[in-house]
Amino acid sequence: MKTPLVADLNSEQSITSFFLVHEKEIRNTREGKAYLRLELGDRSGTIEARMWDQFESAAKDISRDDLVKVQARVEIYRNRPQLSLQQVRLAKPEEVDLADFLPQTKADVGKLYAQLVEYAGSIGNPWLKKLVTGIISDPGIAARYKRAPAAKVMHHAYLGGLLEHVISLCGLAKQIAAHYPELDVDLLLTAAMLHDVGKLEELCFERAIGYTVEGQLLGHIVMELETVSKAIDAIEGFPSNLKTVVQHLLISHHGQYEFGSPKLPMIREALAFHYLDDLDSKLAAARAALAVDTGEPEWSAYSGALGRKFLRLDQFLKTPALAPTDRK
Amino acid sequence: MKTPLVADLNSEQSITSFFLVHEKEIRNTREGKAYLRLELGDRSGTIEARMWDQFESAAKDISRDDLVKVQARVEIYRNRPQLSLQQVRLAKPEEVDLADFLPQTKADVGKLYAQLVEYAGSIGNPWLKKLVTGIISDPGIAARYKRAPAAKVMHHAYLGGLLEHVISLCGLAKQIAAHYPELDVDLLLTAAMLHDVGKLEELCFERAIGYTVEGQLLGHIVMELETVSKAIDAIEGFPSNLKTVVQHLLISHHGQYEFGSPKLPMIREALAFHYLDDLDSKLAAARAALAVDTGEPEWSAYSGALGRKFLRLDQFLKTPALAPTDRK
Amino acid sequence: MKTPLVADLNSEQSITSFFLVHEKEIRNTREGKAYLRLELGDRSGTIEARMWDQFESAAKDISRDDLVKVQARVEIYRNRPQLSLQQVRLAKPEEVDLADFLPQTKADVGKLYAQLVEYAGSIGNPWLKKLVTGIISDPGIAARYKRAPAAKVMHHAYLGGLLEHVISLCGLAKQIAAHYPELDVDLLLTAAMLHDVGKLEELCFERAIGYTVEGQLLGHIVMELETVSKAIDAIEGFPSNLKTVVQHLLISHHGQYEFGSPKLPMIREALAFHYLDDLDSKLAAARAALAVDTGEPEWSAYSGALGRKFLRLDQFLKTPALAPTDRK
Amino acid sequence: MKTPLVADLNSEQSITSFFLVHEKEIRNTREGKAYLRLELGDRSGTIEARMWDQFESAAKDISRDDLVKVQARVEIYRNRPQLSLQQVRLAKPEEVDLADFLPQTKADVGKLYAQLVEYAGSIGNPWLKKLVTGIISDPGIAARYKRAPAAKVMHHAYLGGLLEHVISLCGLAKQIAAHYPELDVDLLLTAAMLHDVGKLEELCFERAIGYTVEGQLLGHIVMELETVSKAIDAIEGFPSNLKTVVQHLLISHHGQYEFGSPKLPMIREALAFHYLDDLDSKLAAARAALAVDTGEPEWSAYSGALGRKFLRLDQFLKTPALAPTDRK
Amino acid sequence: MKTPLVADLNSEQSITSFFLVHEKEIRNTREGKAYLRLELGDRSGTIEARMWDQFESAAKDISRDDLVKVQARVEIYRNRPQLSLQQVRLAKPEEVDLADFLPQTKADVGKLYAQLVEYAGSIGNPWLKKLVTGIISDPGIAARYKRAPAAKVMHHAYLGGLLEHVISLCGLAKQIAAHYPELDVDLLLTAAMLHDVGKLEELCFERAIGYTVEGQLLGHIVMELETVSKAIDAIEGFPSNLKTVVQHLLISHHGQYEFGSPKLPMIREALAFHYLDDLDSKLAAARAALAVDTGEPEWSAYSGALGRKFLRLDQFLKTPALAPTDRK
Amino acid sequence: MKTPLVADLNSEQSITSFFLVHEKEIRNTREGKAYLRLELGDRSGTIEARMWDQFESAAKDISRDDLVKVQARVEIYRNRPQLSLQQVRLAKPEEVDLADFLPQTKADVGKLYAQLVEYAGSIGNPWLKKLVTGIISDPGIAARYKRAPAAKVMHHAYLGGLLEHVISLCGLAKQIAAHYPELDVDLLLTAAMLHDVGKLEELCFERAIGYTVEGQLLGHIVMELETVSKAIDAIEGFPSNLKTVVQHLLISHHGQYEFGSPKLPMIREALAFHYLDDLDSKLAAARAALAVDTGEPEWSAYSGALGRKFLRLDQFLKTPALAPTDRK
Repeated sequence: MKTPLVADLNSEQSITSFFLVHEKEIRNTREGKAYLRLELGDRSGTIEARMWDQFESAAKDISRDDLVKVQARVEIYRNRPQLSLQQVRLAKPEEVDLADFLPQTKADVGKLYAQLVEYAGSIGNPWLKKLVTGIISDPGIAARYKRAPAAKVMHHAYLGGLLEHVISLCGLAKQIAAHYPELDVDLLLTAAMLHDVGKLEELCFERAIGYTVEGQLLGHIVMELETVSKAIDAIEGFPSNLKTVVQHLLISHHGQYEFGSPKLPMIREALAFHYLDDLDSKLAAARAALAVDTGEPEWSAYSGALGRKFLRLDQFLKTPALAPTDRK
Repeated sequence: MKTPLVADLNSEQSITSFFLVHEKEIRNTREGKAYLRLELGDRSGTIEARMWDQFESAAKDISRDDLVKVQARVEIYRNRPQLSLQQVRLAKPEEVDLADFLPQTKADVGKLYAQLVEYAGSIGNPWLKKLVTGIISDPGIAARYKRAPAAKVMHHAYLGGLLEHVISLCGLAKQIAAHYPELDVDLLLTAAMLHDVGKLEELCFERAIGYTVEGQLLGHIVMELETVSKAIDAIEGFPSNLKTVVQHLLISHHGQYEFGSPKLPMIREALAFHYLDDLDSKLAAARAALAVDTGEPEWSAYSGALGRKFLRLDQFLKTPALAPTDRK
Repeated sequence: MKTPLVADLNSEQSITSFFLVHEKEIRNTREGKAYLRLELGDRSGTIEARMWDQFESAAKDISRDDLVKVQARVEIYRNRPQLSLQQVRLAKPEEVDLADFLPQTKADVGKLYAQLVEYAGSIGNPWLKKLVTGIISDPGIAARYKRAPAAKVMHHAYLGGLLEHVISLCGLAKQIAAHYPELDVDLLLTAAMLHDVGKLEELCFERAIGYTVEGQLLGHIVMELETVSKAIDAIEGFPSNLKTVVQHLLISHHGQYEFGSPKLPMIREALAFHYLDDLDSKLAAARAALAVDTGEPEWSAYSGALGRKFLRLDQFLKTPALAPTDRK
Repeated sequence: MKTPLVADLNSEQSITSFFLVHEKEIRNTREGKAYLRLELGDRSGTIEARMWDQFESAAKDISRDDLVKVQARVEIYRNRPQLSLQQVRLAKPEEVDLADFLPQTKADVGKLYAQLVEYAGSIGNPWLKKLVTGIISDPGIAARYKRAPAAKVMHHAYLGGLLEHVISLCGLAKQIAAHYPELDVDLLLTAAMLHDVGKLEELCFERAIGYTVEGQLLGHIVMELETVSKAIDAIEGFPSNLKTVVQHLLISHHGQYEFGSPKLPMIREALAFHYLDDLDSKLAAARAALAVDTGEPEWSAYSGALGRKFLRLDQFLKTPALAPTDRK
Repeated sequence: MKTPLVADLNSEQSITSFFLVHEKEIRNTREGKAYLRLELGDRSGTIEARMWDQFESAAKDISRDDLVKVQARVEIYRNRPQLSLQQVRLAKPEEVDLADFLPQTKADVGKLYAQLVEYAGSIGNPWLKKLVTGIISDPGIAARYKRAPAAKVMHHAYLGGLLEHVISLCGLAKQIAAHYPELDVDLLLTAAMLHDVGKLEELCFERAIGYTVEGQLLGHIVMELETVSKAIDAIEGFPSNLKTVVQHLLISHHGQYEFGSPKLPMIREALAFHYLDDLDSKLAAARAALAVDTGEPEWSAYSGALGRKFLRLDQFLKTPALAPTDRK
Repeated sequence: MKTPLVADLNSEQSITSFFLVHEKEIRNTREGKAYLRLELGDRSGTIEARMWDQFESAAKDISRDDLVKVQARVEIYRNRPQLSLQQVRLAKPEEVDLADFLPQTKADVGKLYAQLVEYAGSIGNPWLKKLVTGIISDPGIAARYKRAPAAKVMHHAYLGGLLEHVISLCGLAKQIAAHYPELDVDLLLTAAMLHDVGKLEELCFERAIGYTVEGQLLGHIVMELETVSKAIDAIEGFPSNLKTVVQHLLISHHGQYEFGSPKLPMIREALAFHYLDDLDSKLAAARAALAVDTGEPEWSAYSGALGRKFLRLDQFLKTPALAPTDRK
């Protein structure tokens, strides 16, 4: 792991470290002197940086989203910490570990993707099988599918998180369909594999997890609707009503208008899938909150996604209960 | 106008009249005797009808959404009025006037459509002009555009209502763009002409205004998104970011998540268009409520769309004010 | 099945049938003449009944919630249908089938209960096993558990419905715990078997499904909290913190304050159980809405519990799609 | 423009500049030594200031809302920047430009006011014309009308902002009335010119934009209701029902209860005016958010009034779209 | 009491009785024959009436809100009961008792008003005492104050109800001020006596309780604000800030924006008064719901104002509890 | 009073003072060197503290919630103030005054408790009297009842606050029952004395006011329900329906589902008690906000519990009103 991380910087310290360039601009002081202003970051946070002299060649080489090596001093300016840069250059690929800049799944992405292909192959309905297989094996999509996080902050917010979430949902889909004979497993699997495919374009996650402009303006539901509809239209003979059903599964999966679903689930598979998706996301959010070391032995970090803390159950259950007399 | 209308039927009356078939089924009495059950209607309402004898050939000829001529007796059964049918046959086209079965705009649809074409022609941006012109002059779309209502019940709920609403919005768009130089008139006009194009498929309005199954499952925003996106993709060279902007205008026009917009307006034209659309719809709803003769001299009918009654302003202003002494 | 049902009564008909007494009172006409007024019902609805002469001995014998045999005439009074009673007497047990008066599960209740006992036996944690087994095998509770509906109207609203719902949840609990290793299956099973035990006292379901006064004032969450807490206190050595966890599972299972949960789930098992409970209830509500023959081939009855209709998917998927030309 | 502005202060700098006194008090240190504490500000922000020695005469001369000239040193105390004052005295009127202390419209206020008078003169209804003309030409009101902002933070939050907003609304009113023949232009103009007249007293804006105590307790709707009602009562013969209508226009212009309108619009002019007012305010808020240089090339500053950022459309449309291969 | 009341009408009955005219119009049958249509009512309900022949002189004499004597036959038309009028004439004052047409308080209005005057006299602050005394002793106001209901349906919805409500609030005000020394009793009493004075004009209650047009458009808060402000302005020297406080008490008494208060209480007396007003209104609504004989021994009628039924506590507490064995 | 308080610490100061230990842990620097980290506090706030050398024996002696004496230096680390500890040891009881660490009522707790006993003794209903007396005189409960705050932050958030709140409610209960003869004073008093008894276990307030884990998971309503139900069950012959009524009073006292009441008040005493409880809590919150010296002469501190500031009425009323000419 690189040192120091942004979160570890102390005032009046001289450092040599690697950072990701979030923003770059040339600015002028009030007196008209030009300088280079960067926003630098790593997985622990971001900091402003300024370079006052001989920044021209650095400025030419470096762009947003590049990884750079810097030599700098930590200072305070207008009451905020900043780096005063002495040297800065592009990092060499072998010098840096992307994991220092973006969190990543601990699972084996190759294996997860193989499972995805297997689930797609298990779909019985030929139209749906062709649709799902076609989409996930499109080379451009596959590459991003293996890498995408499931969200920016809410749940599975790390590289590979989307695939983890989808594989978990496919497993749930199989179980639920076995439990409720009235549910069609093919529709549930289709929903699981396609419901977040729009996130491949809604989010950008090359160097940092964020939203694309299109993602902000349209959102993943609308984006995947277009991707999936086009894929359907390219399959000759795909039944028109089945297309409507697939589209409905996508647009209703948030379950409520206020969560951005323009339609409520009106098919049982859509209703059930909404619950599975919500359950898996919320459990992942709880898992993340519990993974933070808070210093509080019995409570997790506060989860913004869930609006509460979670109890560390094992800890609580092994706490010896107070004798009643201690309580009163 | 046909007589009698459903709303005018009296108990124990014998009638000959024309109706639209809303539902048709063969049922069995508890004793196992088959009979024909129809749901018949006209613009004033609906009534159940039963035919007990010799209904076989009628049942074969007649389908849902047909117009029929009936001879019947008005009776009461299980406390609800019904028609006991003596004869029923398909109406001949020349015997009926569709206006008896569905309310219609009083405006000249041909003229409105010509105005629509003119507005489309006035768009300066060549890509948007090509897009809008292409869609509204598609023969299948044009025919439905001239006929569609703007809604089932909320506003402009009559044949031709959609076109009336859109033409009004185009006029407003021109005015608003003149008033606020920061607004792009081409985007406003595009929004006006395309924002409800999905209603052509969300609603069915051949014989009665209702929702199609696809309309229920997807809604007009999602349906027009597909129509418009395809039309864009068919125009070679259409700028990709402009496509995103057009899509955003469509999906944000309801203005709030809880009204089924999966995104809030994030472009000024989208914000302004949302207000214009809402204003025109709500004024139309007020107009409709005021058009009902309620017997109350000073108040309109209750508007479900608006959740209130409206004051008949002219009436109120000419009421001589009570002298203060009368009031106290 | 008894005939006629209330829903089948026609005006000016003379009938002989069996009904459940919902209300009984002696009233006086304006002229001071006493008469007997009953509210009678069966599984299809209710109707008012009046007996004008020689009702004294009948009035003495009959009480609310009795089943009676009547001879009567169907009349209209003050614009509402009523029965004018000629004779009325207590029905003999062998004359009536309770199923005519209350809907019932089609499952074999004995088998379901055996499964419940088996699930309880599968709990590994000795304290929880002792708690759950003790409660469900209490003779008074077991008898009611086999008979109780899960709700008055929302879902599983028929005799045996509660047991069906619980068995389904136990199956889901096993699956989910296998899927998420972080979840404790014993807590999930405990929640499944005890979370609605308060409904045994919140609802009354001897002759009709309704609420007890205690049920109205306290609700099943509070009622079962007392039942379960007492059962825990009766087990010597039950760990105090485990008691808190069980209580939390009960009071948080509605998942939101506005659904009457005084606490949000703060343990992962509580969160997951809330989703399972909601999923099973809502799917049951959808199933019930789809079971109603609505005359609409593609849509279920409107489900008040869900605020929407459901699509009959099989029907819709086999409808031949309209050719595009038919649509435009 | 004065230098430096508060926003430009750097640590350990010695300055001479002009500020507005927001607060003034004499305090004691823990050791009992008295000192002068001021809150100083200009259009860019505020800063605390302390004067430790020989502050007595300064303290006597200076009051809240005075403009002062100071000589001081910028320091950090308990982790917050502050000014350590060496000298402070009242500024002479000729030394300061009020524009340095409060933001101002770029429009020509005299011209705007002339337009206002012209719009009032264009009202056809003699009662309304007399009412509006009388109010806006009252010398006390006119002076404040020319200077008032339209809000403290939400929109048009600068001197002259109210007049800008009103003139924009008058223009919209004319257009809308031309578009919808059912709307009375006189009522719309009256609403435009009087609907925020209460802000002249709700806000104080001599030296800083804030709320008066009366403004906090009553709000501009209630305050203008009194101003306008009194003006009406002073016009002999003003029709009583027309008074009610004008009052209704004022109290319903926020459109919803939760925005402080005690009545929903029940007259079409009130409904339409509410939309115009909301549109003009929200577009102004978007304009303000877009005017902030955020460093993000494609997004405006976050607008608290609108709860979102806005897209810089021109910027986005000229961005060359990524080739699909870059995206995947 | 007059007989029969509307609620007691039976089909095919001939009656002679007195009614209040709610609506009157001349209509034409489809064949063009004119007839008189009235809406008649008494305290128990309303019924439609038609007069087919020789109605001309009656139609000329009779107006809305008149009391009439009719001879008529009770019939059913289009499934709704109606009166077929044979004769109708204005009732003579001595023939009718207004109490048959509008519900009335059981308290002695003269005594209540005397208490009101006494409470006003007990105010210590001379300005408030002068204000309140002046308003309640204005002859026009006093006459209406003695007669007004407190609401159309929510609570105290009978003649004299407002006075009952106000006297109760004055008593509470005295107690609360004694309990909390920080509260000013004079302000609480002023609020109690003036907070609903706008209802004298918001409601009309000569012959039936309803809303005036002004009441609908402005509401009682706005109406009393004008009445009270004028009364204050007529008192020379009334302190300006005290006027603001009184106005704030009036406009904040509904406590929440969504109940039509344009400001939240920001003075402790305003906060406390809001609770007292709400408490007294809600207890009155509960009292009214419990006063209805529902046939259910343990539950009140459903209170629309409260959204629930109330328990008949005395009844419930004397019910012998079921033995536990009966319950299980 | 101890000096200095946390709120008075200045950078680079050496201090000797007493603090409460909120957290204690041994941590390692990046280089692997162990150090002691404490979170220390008093009634004015909290601060982090680190001890780098010879902390072992201190670390062994000291636990969370201990009071300690420290010698330390105030420093800034990573931009936050901290204490660098030179010495730390357990404080001797005689060295510290608990009042320095937790805010306390100014009332005489002994007297308040005597009043509580007296109110309990005044209950007429023998069952309720026995119940309430039994609970409040249980030695374990009594000790905590005298010490408990009524909340962590919302109202009466200081030691003894709960008792103050309850005594105030008992007084209100007596008054309200005298005012409304329909209300049973015994039920109101019972509600007052028992409705927050769960707070004795929901909150911990030995050294700081916080929530117990049980309090977080169950809440005071559920906790007191168990306490009170057990107390009832221990009274032989306590009427079963009266138990239900008492339980209903407890669980409905928050008045709304969203405030954590699983049932709405359905008994008049429960409705009235909810208003009294809310009134007393909100007035206490207003009192607390007004007690803060804000520097603003006319406004209180912002009250989070109430979502607003309060007017300092006395201050405002004595402000000389501006002459109208100053305003315009």
